[in-house]
Amino acid sequence: MEPNLEVSGISYCVMSQTIDTYVDRNKTRFLSELKDFIRIPSISTLPENAGDVRRAAGFTAAQLRAAGLENVEIVETAKHPLVYADWLHAEGKPTVLCYGHYDVQPPDPLDLWVTPPFEPTERDGNLYARGAVDDKGQMMMHIKALETLRALSGSTLPVNIKVLIEGEEEVGGASIAKYVPEQKAKLKADVALVSDTALYAEGIPTLCIGLRGLVYTEVECTGPAKDLHSGLYGGSAPNPIFALIEVLSKTKDASGCIQIPGMYEDWQAPAAAELNSWKSLPFSEPEFLEKEVGSAALTGEPAYSVLERVWARPTLEVHGIAGGFTGSGAKTVIPSRATAKVSFRLVPDQDPDKIVAGFRSFLKAHTPAGCKIELRVLSGSPAVVVNPDHPAIRVAARVFEETLGRPTVFIRSGGSIPIVGDFARHLGIPTVLMGFGLPDDALHSPNEKFKIENYFTGIRTIARFLEQYGE
Amino acid sequence: MEPNLEVSGISYCVMSQTIDTYVDRNKTRFLSELKDFIRIPSISTLPENAGDVRRAAGFTAAQLRAAGLENVEIVETAKHPLVYADWLHAEGKPTVLCYGHYDVQPPDPLDLWVTPPFEPTERDGNLYARGAVDDKGQMMMHIKALETLRALSGSTLPVNIKVLIEGEEEVGGASIAKYVPEQKAKLKADVALVSDTALYAEGIPTLCIGLRGLVYTEVECTGPAKDLHSGLYGGSAPNPIFALIEVLSKTKDASGCIQIPGMYEDWQAPAAAELNSWKSLPFSEPEFLEKEVGSAALTGEPAYSVLERVWARPTLEVHGIAGGFTGSGAKTVIPSRATAKVSFRLVPDQDPDKIVAGFRSFLKAHTPAGCKIELRVLSGSPAVVVNPDHPAIRVAARVFEETLGRPTVFIRSGGSIPIVGDFARHLGIPTVLMGFGLPDDALHSPNEKFKIENYFTGIRTIARFLEQYGE
Repeated sequence: MEPNLEVSGISYCVMSQTIDTYVDRNKTRFLSELKDFIRIPSISTLPENAGDVRRAAGFTAAQLRAAGLENVEIVETAKHPLVYADWLHAEGKPTVLCYGHYDVQPPDPLDLWVTPPFEPTERDGNLYARGAVDDKGQMMMHIKALETLRALSGSTLPVNIKVLIEGEEEVGGASIAKYVPEQKAKLKADVALVSDTALYAEGIPTLCIGLRGLVYTEVECTGPAKDLHSGLYGGSAPNPIFALIEVLSKTKDASGCIQIPGMYEDWQAPAAAELNSWKSLPFSEPEFLEKEVGSAALTGEPAYSVLERVWARPTLEVHGIAGGFTGSGAKTVIPSRATAKVSFRLVPDQDPDKIVAGFRSFLKAHTPAGCKIELRVLSGSPAVVVNPDHPAIRVAARVFEETLGRPTVFIRSGGSIPIVGDFARHLGIPTVLMGFGLPDDALHSPNEKFKIENYFTGIRTIARFLEQYGE
Repeated sequence: MEPNLEVSGISYCVMSQTIDTYVDRNKTRFLSELKDFIRIPSISTLPENAGDVRRAAGFTAAQLRAAGLENVEIVETAKHPLVYADWLHAEGKPTVLCYGHYDVQPPDPLDLWVTPPFEPTERDGNLYARGAVDDKGQMMMHIKALETLRALSGSTLPVNIKVLIEGEEEVGGASIAKYVPEQKAKLKADVALVSDTALYAEGIPTLCIGLRGLVYTEVECTGPAKDLHSGLYGGSAPNPIFALIEVLSKTKDASGCIQIPGMYEDWQAPAAAELNSWKSLPFSEPEFLEKEVGSAALTGEPAYSVLERVWARPTLEVHGIAGGFTGSGAKTVIPSRATAKVSFRLVPDQDPDKIVAGFRSFLKAHTPAGCKIELRVLSGSPAVVVNPDHPAIRVAARVFEETLGRPTVFIRSGGSIPIVGDFARHLGIPTVLMGFGLPDDALHSPNEKFKIENYFTGIRTIARFLEQYGE
């Protein structure tokens, strides 16, 4: 930790330059501390990594202490711990609840990584590693912004700060979803700040004011009591793989329109103004196809634009499927079971429970003869939208414009950050979704990256936001 | 090896009792040698077991030598070796080509085995192990029958014998399919004898006179260039798992009728007499469902009986499917690829090449937008039927009736033994399909078994068959 610059006493509004100076002087350390964080393989979905997840929680707590936060606490849960900290001495100033997550997605398929997923590597100004941008890098921006502000002011912050960081974001966030409603008083704040989204494009200041919800399920289909020889039984015994294929294939028509009754019943179209603003965004469908998706063609409901399909329409995806013999060569077996992971992305005003109920009855109605289908729900959260006229959003938009020198755009994300819905529902506060990732960061994929300069831009912008929101 | 009983010189026809005596006296050794054979995990489809497959070939050769066969030869091939042996001193007598395979199916799923798959275990009069009945146990019956006949006659056999045993039966049998047409003179015989089928039911002498053919393929579907985050791309990016599901689901209608054009074009219905004989077989559909299949209901084309569906109708099965994230928990990924193993069972007079061509164009026609589908053919062989009036079949039927004390029934098998077609096509000879397995032997499944008494009955019956066929 470098010695603080002695600047306490001067007014915050002239501090922007000094913020830049402090961040510049500490770049090396800010980056190396992020690398140390990333080296911890905190994969929340794999039981064998539970110890690493706990180490990542400890690392987070230590970072918060070093930044001068108080009441740093590792909160035990049924699964992975939460990390809480605060600084509440800015009398009369608003309170900001900073959220992030220290857990990451599994790195597989491993063979597609250019460099090891948990050995952060710099290439062409990017930091390549699992968790680089989702969300370790963006979470560290908050902590480093807080350190910067306290360093510049001697020992104070321009607003009251509460920090709540989870380790189950990639597996549905059950623990924090239970914790927030239980701790309303402790978590009371005026606004939440989340950096788990991306800039619309390089250099474009972007505030996300809408997120899709997510229902994640497992579907298991069982048929014969044991694996059978397909020669001796083929033609008379039910095949659970084929049964699963049959029923799942009926969930969507060829254009991607979901066939589950009631799926679009509560769907709300975005306001005309919002739809128009999307039309003005620099979006190139050929470029999106070639540079990001890389398939022969895009798919989805033809009646909607790509941005509408991804931001404002519900979707059904099969994330994984497994059954029977999948080794090399041939095995003529009719297996006794097959499974699939199926999720729904939700938009306003869809209700997760209603979607699950609809899916369950759809499966029941379409289960082929001779097989049984079981549905297990792993998680469910609704979509959220934030009012762009909220004071915090307005300050964020102005600050963003200052640091990047371009007008801020308001977008949605097709992704899901369930906690944002919980903050709205239980704490009654909106969330500023101020992220510094890029569309090609390969979240959840091999070779995930974070543009190193955006890490520092994020620290600067967030410090400014907290500074000006406190005025 | 016990000392030979001195019975040479007496006519074969009074030897039946002595055959029984010799087999009885040697039961312990016959069984322990089979167990030694089974302990070799000769899984032909798994590269890591290639060494075990070779050991099994060596074991087979040693057994043939010990039984008194001559010119024992391990024939190198592109993959797993063949084992050849002969005894050609029965002047003026017919020549019988004995076939079997020493390779086995993979044992997975391992957790469902009561005792380890490659540690043969006796329970309730059965021998439990992978390969116990398919085909190590049945192949050993031939060798032990030959040993018995030579032992009883001093040193001769009632017919000329050629033995050809392969190690690739469970993976399509490419090497023997190449070897047979190349070695027509060497393999010249009057009839082939194969024991790789089952009794229709316990105690019912059964000759199989029809086998389904098999086309085994791998279908690979690719979409995005890399795995994608389903939140950020769901609704616009093609999902290869869903594309694979869509196209495979179209291959059959709800009743199991295959929708691939031309699939039933060359199909030949069994003769009325054969269909009638099937009706007279002791078949209980409820028992078949409960004791063998164990599912909620049977499936398949409603217009055909279960036996017709399994013996005389083509089928399409998906044996395995894999794609995306299938670990525990949740991963919100749109994977870049998914694969499935798909096979067709063929009946007279379907042509494997024509079926493959039809499947290929069907996949091409139904590949969803944005994805690519590749078809790889692992093997292909047509169905075969044998004329029940052939002298060898008549002798086999009579002998079978003698040993089991009931009239022999003629059935078909839904399984595939490609070599039987090759023998007919290239050597111009029919095959006696004389098997001693049982319908509930769980071939290709966990807890495969062979009824120990049937092993000895098989040795006795085959010895008698060779004896009487030589008269």
